[in-house]
Amino acid sequence: MDRPVDGTPPGSGLQDRPSAPDLHGPDADPLLGGRRALSAAKNELRICWIDGRIAPIEQAVVRADDSAYSEGRGCYTTARIVAGRARWIDRHAARLSRSASQLGLGDLEEDRVRTAIRELASKAFGDGDGIVRMQASRDGDGIVHLVGVPRRLGDEPDQWSAILVDLPHTGGGLARGLKVSSRLTMALAGDAAREAGVEEALLLDGNGWLVEGSRSNILVVADADTLVTPPLSLGAVAGLARTLVLERVPSIVERAVSAEELRSAKEIIAVNALRGARPITKLDGKPIGDGAAGAWSKRLSEVLEAD
Amino acid sequence: MDRPVDGTPPGSGLQDRPSAPDLHGPDADPLLGGRRALSAAKNELRICWIDGRIAPIEQAVVRADDSAYSEGRGCYTTARIVAGRARWIDRHAARLSRSASQLGLGDLEEDRVRTAIRELASKAFGDGDGIVRMQASRDGDGIVHLVGVPRRLGDEPDQWSAILVDLPHTGGGLARGLKVSSRLTMALAGDAAREAGVEEALLLDGNGWLVEGSRSNILVVADADTLVTPPLSLGAVAGLARTLVLERVPSIVERAVSAEELRSAKEIIAVNALRGARPITKLDGKPIGDGAAGAWSKRLSEVLEAD
Repeated sequence: MDRPVDGTPPGSGLQDRPSAPDLHGPDADPLLGGRRALSAAKNELRICWIDGRIAPIEQAVVRADDSAYSEGRGCYTTARIVAGRARWIDRHAARLSRSASQLGLGDLEEDRVRTAIRELASKAFGDGDGIVRMQASRDGDGIVHLVGVPRRLGDEPDQWSAILVDLPHTGGGLARGLKVSSRLTMALAGDAAREAGVEEALLLDGNGWLVEGSRSNILVVADADTLVTPPLSLGAVAGLARTLVLERVPSIVERAVSAEELRSAKEIIAVNALRGARPITKLDGKPIGDGAAGAWSKRLSEVLEAD
Repeated sequence: MDRPVDGTPPGSGLQDRPSAPDLHGPDADPLLGGRRALSAAKNELRICWIDGRIAPIEQAVVRADDSAYSEGRGCYTTARIVAGRARWIDRHAARLSRSASQLGLGDLEEDRVRTAIRELASKAFGDGDGIVRMQASRDGDGIVHLVGVPRRLGDEPDQWSAILVDLPHTGGGLARGLKVSSRLTMALAGDAAREAGVEEALLLDGNGWLVEGSRSNILVVADADTLVTPPLSLGAVAGLARTLVLERVPSIVERAVSAEELRSAKEIIAVNALRGARPITKLDGKPIGDGAAGAWSKRLSEVLEAD
């Protein structure tokens, strides 16, 4: 592999770094404490897809002993539907199938995932646009189930504002890089973003390194116009858009990024399979670079719109 | 508070510690990779409880947009039922209600939880013994649901064997100390224990500090017969049994415990609300102390059986 990987290796060279804040004391309650969770995804379409049939969203479709429900042992993917067709459907299907195996859920054939995405997209959007979220889990008898929920893409600004949630990303743990339903920390970070009225919340790990956003992978234009992104070893999801830009832009460097570097970046770019590349032009209320979309965000947008 | 808290503060003094292993590389696959998840809890009773009614376990009771199912935003508790009555029912109800609020789920009255536990215990066990697991989450319309699953206590040896899963505990993240359904790492660690044929898997954090077991809090008898347990700031669940022994044994010290200290401990004791205190007399196949239950494990058992 000829991709440059340099910079401070995570887990070493941290001697000068302050210790992580005590997040567990009675006074440390930055996100929680009786506030109402804010809804990320409206279910305005009011349907779901369960093992081949469409059901009203109000109808129960998941068992009480479902693995995603009871222990967060589920994996999911969110596909963008454009003119009735799912972008990167083969990649979505391959990743979901592989993740199901890695989580010990059992076999999930890629073709079953493709069929599911197509059926739900067709029912929900016809030849139109939208988003389909498919999740796999298994019940207490070991049967793998696939459940889909469609939603509208919704309006968002072309340029994002973000906050830095200075709280520990929980890392990948044993589920390295997988897109798992066990994602409470990401959900709470998403709450914080919505409460702050911004589009994204970025998370650091306990050592102060950037990991990812609550719903995107992050790239940063650091010194000398080098585009860098945190390595997956720090715990980020191996997002499809991240994988695609790494494949298509060989000069991207994977290395650890500190909060200081993030704040002084020329550009910060969020990528995911739903939105492509979005410049984060404001972080914690302060402009990033000159406060406008930069050259790299335009380049990555083009790269992700190429197919 | 007069409880002694000493020892190396987590997050500092780690200069000599080796960096965490790269868990994300293609060759690092200690737990995952196509193995079948092993079932922790048999659903031999084949029923569940959902918002006041009993349903067969095969029947779907949870919506596709349920917060625990889709993003791990759920909290739960597992109560021991003895002769038809739930031990520590008020503590279970108070913790579950408080957790629901802290996760932003909404209001969950303690009395609703008590009623749920009693109804399900009565239906499942009559005047007998067992376990009731109650989980709270909310649907996409914001309604808080309560779902219970009963199971038998099952046979386990009085003394436990354990393995040390030398992989990062994901910490508490934003959900400090809460017993949340977003617990994939714990589930995978439980798989590893069952696969190794032992009763428990202990987890270290990325810096090498003991956090907790996959289903218990851990106490260690270190030098000079001091009983120590990791502080919640390292990410452990604030288990009911842990809380009880801390209340009832004021000499217990909360401080960080390294893997080395764990291996050379005189005693290791696992506590949870279902099993009380269990001596871990073998770790990674090697005896702890003299390989028999020690004085502190007996003392903690008595302490937890006192009511």
